[in-house]
Amino acid sequence: MKPKTLAEMGEDALVRRITKKLPLSSEVMAGAGDDCALVKPLAHGWVQLLKTDCVVEGVHFERGTAPRRAGWKAMARTISDIAAMGGEPMHALITLLCPPDRNVAEVEKLYGGLRRCAAQFGVSIVGGETSRAPLLAIMVSLTGRVKKSHCLRRNGAKAGNVIYVTGRLGGSLQKHHLDFMPRLKEAQWLAAHFKPHAMMDLSDGLAKDLPRMAAASRVDFVIDETALPLNRHCTPSQAWSDGEDYELLFAVPARKASHLEKEWRGHFPKLLLTCIGRFVAKGRGHLPSFASKGWEHFSS
Amino acid sequence: MKPKTLAEMGEDALVRRITKKLPLSSEVMAGAGDDCALVKPLAHGWVQLLKTDCVVEGVHFERGTAPRRAGWKAMARTISDIAAMGGEPMHALITLLCPPDRNVAEVEKLYGGLRRCAAQFGVSIVGGETSRAPLLAIMVSLTGRVKKSHCLRRNGAKAGNVIYVTGRLGGSLQKHHLDFMPRLKEAQWLAAHFKPHAMMDLSDGLAKDLPRMAAASRVDFVIDETALPLNRHCTPSQAWSDGEDYELLFAVPARKASHLEKEWRGHFPKLLLTCIGRFVAKGRGHLPSFASKGWEHFSS
Repeated sequence: MKPKTLAEMGEDALVRRITKKLPLSSEVMAGAGDDCALVKPLAHGWVQLLKTDCVVEGVHFERGTAPRRAGWKAMARTISDIAAMGGEPMHALITLLCPPDRNVAEVEKLYGGLRRCAAQFGVSIVGGETSRAPLLAIMVSLTGRVKKSHCLRRNGAKAGNVIYVTGRLGGSLQKHHLDFMPRLKEAQWLAAHFKPHAMMDLSDGLAKDLPRMAAASRVDFVIDETALPLNRHCTPSQAWSDGEDYELLFAVPARKASHLEKEWRGHFPKLLLTCIGRFVAKGRGHLPSFASKGWEHFSS
Repeated sequence: MKPKTLAEMGEDALVRRITKKLPLSSEVMAGAGDDCALVKPLAHGWVQLLKTDCVVEGVHFERGTAPRRAGWKAMARTISDIAAMGGEPMHALITLLCPPDRNVAEVEKLYGGLRRCAAQFGVSIVGGETSRAPLLAIMVSLTGRVKKSHCLRRNGAKAGNVIYVTGRLGGSLQKHHLDFMPRLKEAQWLAAHFKPHAMMDLSDGLAKDLPRMAAASRVDFVIDETALPLNRHCTPSQAWSDGEDYELLFAVPARKASHLEKEWRGHFPKLLLTCIGRFVAKGRGHLPSFASKGWEHFSS
């Protein structure tokens, strides 16, 4: 008889099951199965990126969400952070907290989502940990690499830089937060060809993330609220506040704007690129008229 | 008025609070505060170790445990895994899941324990993630490095090797599981001077971990049950099954045994080293008389 719950199956058998068919690159010297994974060092000229992120049932996805989509989201969120630095994702470790009465099939589907997203973006899954817990949560820790000269921080924006976002914003929690595509190749292209002064991904929404970039860069901002690229049925206020869009937010010198827009259309004709405002000197910024939240971050 | 609960304080303020005074080495180019941490690549001749581990309230420590000790345990467990490969721990990412009604002071103490353990073993805390959740759990992801020639796997034990453990075993959950010291310098010394054929740390207990080493190495084992080094008030059966000792388990050729024991006493006079048995060819092993659990792993 096939085991049904995690408790019936036991940890060792579960780990054997979920560590089958993991995507592994040639840099991996030893994946899951020992005390640690073992990977080759980076080649000359690269620096390492480190990131961890988590999704929790009831917080980042609802009970009843297809496990495959929850797994995709957990992996894609972390890849999005590596992308936001201009990097390439490499090696992932997965920690799974799960109630022991959950079905093994559910956990296998969840890993299916993690694996599918990892494989699509060239990530190796090299190990992890499982523990019983009263809730379902997935933590992904990811290493990446970036050429030293291509690394994009969030703290380099200058007064006078124009502010761009990719894609459309708002309404993610009703629609695409479980299926989004990290903007990996777009971010790498930007890093290589236009080296934005600052870049980050929009995980918490413009209302929180743009003030974080401004604060890190010691500038303020002015937003053209009529310019915000809206998802269908969304208001500018939703595009400002909703979050979970995982689009890129970045700053470039104004003189590069028209060349960037032309090149972008040639390379990524299906993905919108929108100038939504500009960074200005400290004390010269103001928030959009509909912005009620986020001001405390902005002013602090 | 000082904020009291996490919900009152908010995520950004909490992160600012707990990312103060983090231990950072000179290899860290950017710690907490951007999408990813940024660290220097390894020097020539080293390979990278990657590990993640978690502790969950109610599973790995009880509600009511001093948060400082829970934090120490979370960091020490992961360092113990890096040690078990003969490596040096380097950069840690912390993910904290926490109910929003918990006190900020409790989380600060928890981070105090993480920081203290990290600092003691030369680990930089370079970032992390926080999320509200219905339970308290701490995930630590850790990178490390090991010289290629010093890396110790668990799959290299040979029939005829003798089996050693450090320290004393059993009763950890009543005593030292929250305060244990990862055997980092001992493991590095073993890797550099005796290169054991196989090594791992005893997190789940001999009853589970020894069969894992044997299975990975395709050998069986014979244990001298009268030789098991016992913690006070513990029976051999407890030393076999209890787990959470975080001592080193390793295998060396029999001809090296007496030299190893003599050198060990000179270098680590306060830490017991005990030969508990030997690895034998497949089919020639047998379990201790008191071993009831663990056999299914052994035989599979």
